[in-house]
Amino acid sequence: MGNEADRGLPTGTAAPGDGSVPRQANVMIMIDVRAILMTLGLVLCASAAAMLLPALVDFADYNSDWSVFVASSAITFFAGGLLTLVGTGPSTRTVTLKTGFVLTTTVWIVATAFAALPFVGLGLSYTDAYFEAMSGLTTTGSTVLSHLDNLPRGILLWRSVLQLIGGIGIIVTAINMLPFLRIGGMQLFATESSDRTEKILPRSVELTLTIAAIYAALVAACAAAYMVFGMTGFDAICHAFTTVSTGGFSTHDLSFGFFQSPALQWICVVFMVLGSLPFLVIYKAWHDRTINLLQDQQVRGFMILLAAAIAIMTVYLILRDDLAFETALRKSAFNVVSVVSTTGYATEDYTLWGPFAVGLFFMMMFIGGCSGSTAGGIKLYRLQITWLLTNAHLAQLVSPRRIASPAYNTRVLDDDIAFSVVAFLFVYIISVLCFAVLLSATGLDMTTAFSSSAQAIASVGPGIGDVVGPAGNFAPLPDTAKWLLSFEMLLGRLELFTVLVLFRGEFWSW
Amino acid sequence: MGNEADRGLPTGTAAPGDGSVPRQANVMIMIDVRAILMTLGLVLCASAAAMLLPALVDFADYNSDWSVFVASSAITFFAGGLLTLVGTGPSTRTVTLKTGFVLTTTVWIVATAFAALPFVGLGLSYTDAYFEAMSGLTTTGSTVLSHLDNLPRGILLWRSVLQLIGGIGIIVTAINMLPFLRIGGMQLFATESSDRTEKILPRSVELTLTIAAIYAALVAACAAAYMVFGMTGFDAICHAFTTVSTGGFSTHDLSFGFFQSPALQWICVVFMVLGSLPFLVIYKAWHDRTINLLQDQQVRGFMILLAAAIAIMTVYLILRDDLAFETALRKSAFNVVSVVSTTGYATEDYTLWGPFAVGLFFMMMFIGGCSGSTAGGIKLYRLQITWLLTNAHLAQLVSPRRIASPAYNTRVLDDDIAFSVVAFLFVYIISVLCFAVLLSATGLDMTTAFSSSAQAIASVGPGIGDVVGPAGNFAPLPDTAKWLLSFEMLLGRLELFTVLVLFRGEFWSW
Repeated sequence: MGNEADRGLPTGTAAPGDGSVPRQANVMIMIDVRAILMTLGLVLCASAAAMLLPALVDFADYNSDWSVFVASSAITFFAGGLLTLVGTGPSTRTVTLKTGFVLTTTVWIVATAFAALPFVGLGLSYTDAYFEAMSGLTTTGSTVLSHLDNLPRGILLWRSVLQLIGGIGIIVTAINMLPFLRIGGMQLFATESSDRTEKILPRSVELTLTIAAIYAALVAACAAAYMVFGMTGFDAICHAFTTVSTGGFSTHDLSFGFFQSPALQWICVVFMVLGSLPFLVIYKAWHDRTINLLQDQQVRGFMILLAAAIAIMTVYLILRDDLAFETALRKSAFNVVSVVSTTGYATEDYTLWGPFAVGLFFMMMFIGGCSGSTAGGIKLYRLQITWLLTNAHLAQLVSPRRIASPAYNTRVLDDDIAFSVVAFLFVYIISVLCFAVLLSATGLDMTTAFSSSAQAIASVGPGIGDVVGPAGNFAPLPDTAKWLLSFEMLLGRLELFTVLVLFRGEFWSW
Repeated sequence: MGNEADRGLPTGTAAPGDGSVPRQANVMIMIDVRAILMTLGLVLCASAAAMLLPALVDFADYNSDWSVFVASSAITFFAGGLLTLVGTGPSTRTVTLKTGFVLTTTVWIVATAFAALPFVGLGLSYTDAYFEAMSGLTTTGSTVLSHLDNLPRGILLWRSVLQLIGGIGIIVTAINMLPFLRIGGMQLFATESSDRTEKILPRSVELTLTIAAIYAALVAACAAAYMVFGMTGFDAICHAFTTVSTGGFSTHDLSFGFFQSPALQWICVVFMVLGSLPFLVIYKAWHDRTINLLQDQQVRGFMILLAAAIAIMTVYLILRDDLAFETALRKSAFNVVSVVSTTGYATEDYTLWGPFAVGLFFMMMFIGGCSGSTAGGIKLYRLQITWLLTNAHLAQLVSPRRIASPAYNTRVLDDDIAFSVVAFLFVYIISVLCFAVLLSATGLDMTTAFSSSAQAIASVGPGIGDVVGPAGNFAPLPDTAKWLLSFEMLLGRLELFTVLVLFRGEFWSW
């Protein structure tokens, strides 16, 4: 199962090439509480600042709800400031493995707890508020709110802002933390910054800032395009936030179906796809001044997958409903991309397209986008790698003496990566099944329970069925189900293992 | 990914320890057509003989259907005899890898084609007849027949005989062929006979005969017990055939629910469990004169799993329906064991027990029994191994310098076994999803499509929903769906890869 040298981690203390356990190994397994509190504090302060945006909008609208946002912001800022102060002081400077795990999960849980405050201020129960905030920050897009068209603009903006933050949050986490934590094959995408010890921080900051800039540029381009083709400025901004982040919150009950404009739908398709691409590849393409993203095996696979799914669904819609070609292609492209990119916008209720469509959409919920994007799901590279491994295994069954060494993006898949990916897939499926059973224990029927579970872990948004389907709403679910789904959204968003290792006894012993 | 020495196969020609490709390697990759025809011929002759049993019963009942069985028997015997004659002659004597793959699949497909004849003679379409025969021989237990209570005894007996033959057929295949084909981790259970070249046949024959004797003893004991507690002789024999083979065909429309006898239900539970145990372990226990089956990790896990599932369901039934303890325990035990052992008898429609029960039963459909038993499904050892690997992976995430070497039944899980198991799991789940989508394309609703797909590959029998549920029947499904399910039953029964390698181009080139 590989040798120790392969598993070397950026500890900052181990002599390179030295197979023995480093003398200061305890540094690696210590949890740096100060660093965690500090990061948490800074994230909360940033969230507090973000809450002032909807406050401004409500204030401009003469809506008294602005005070709710200001109050929430004050509480959040107070807590964040306190944590930052406590966290100031000497720290180990290098982020250790255990600290990385604790940090990633804690930040998302605590940030959600505070992001829920404005919803509470506006009358939701804390369960509903936490669910809505988690759905926002994980860019899932499931909602407990209805009559969106009548809601004040502040709260609508807040929902969009949550997804905007969640989108860039997960990209940064996926690029900087997950390869380092060796989660589910993400080490394949380790940048130099996480490969080599000394340079972690400087490279990371530069990379993060560049990627944030790309993200911001995409959002701006999306908003501009929406506005040019007829959305109001507010709608354009809100939907740009939730399109590029593949979140799926809308400002209308009819979701994207509110805009009966083919042009807007096509723009949306383009930006949902862009949001599902690996941002590291976009960064490299930008860096190398090339636009040929298809050199990347994952991007290529993703495009082929989308093309195939859209083609099948288009033919199906033409045969079934006798639609014109452009209409069928657009409906098909919009809904396929919406599900595969785990955005979850609806132009209409695709669950009424007959059992074949429902079956296919349910399957597509599992796939998800590319690594290091804002999309959720299993992620395409994992399916590609498992397929390569399975294929190699089948070849070897027939010709046992042949040695197969499958490679991905020219990198040979060693056992470490293979097992990461496969263990991820196994835990993913078991999680979907277990949560489905737990959800059905709260009284949901089988279709609702299984599709809710599958969409939550993949951060899609709508499930299948009357209640949680594209035309439905999560409000009627029992509170227990909402907490289960909140936890499942977090679990899926943080690629399972980041959260699950915290439940292991040995994690807390050293 | 391991070295060549690990992958040594019984070729009979390679010098042991010699890493080079053996000179007579072409022997290994040749397909021995004569051996295949010969085996096929013998299997058909045996089937022809088996068809005389229902003929006798119908003759004794003064039912003219006996002629159908005699005619079917004659056709089958003629075809079988012809194949045997053609297959006689010089053969390579050692079963090679490719021959093994082709043989295993061909035998099941052709045997089913002839086993369907009596059903055609009795008025079914060939599609329905093939479906029923495949369901019988794979010990699935899905049926297209209704009004069983009014059918002549001959056809009822034939259905039970098919499952009896299918049950011993799959045990023999699983013990003798699959480890040799290195399918899905079955190499873990290789007996000496398949480990060492020279002794294949003699050991294999002895092992096979002993296991057949154990199987026969179980069937006899089961029939006797059924008779003692009130079944008619005919019902006792038919149900013993389909209990020990974990097939699930009944002679009554109400399935096992026809017998409103707690004692009979408990007997059935015991023999379904026995049929799901690894027959190699039973053989060893018999050989070593011990009854401690729990020393085997798989048996232990299976018992714990059953105990847990039964306990949960018992508590649930007591809380939900306020049942007496024995009633709840019995209902729970019967239905849990019926699904996990992939028998598929029903005492009542458990899909009416509420969404939690339905969800749990759906999940249990995937698990299945133990390796080398008559039960289908993923098989417990694969889940245990994947769990061990995942656990080791999680441990390594936290402590990267620790080297984890999980073992199963004291045998270290090398990469070969790990990949076999994991590739199997992946293909299993993909197959369930793909067949579900294909089935939904024939017009089935989502619950019916997914549960039909899941039960067929696991050879359970009933699915979930009004049509294919425990109270339903597969007759209303479109013909395409029946052929899809027939193929899926075969695929699942032969552990996927045996069938799938035949679809690879390189298999047919040498």
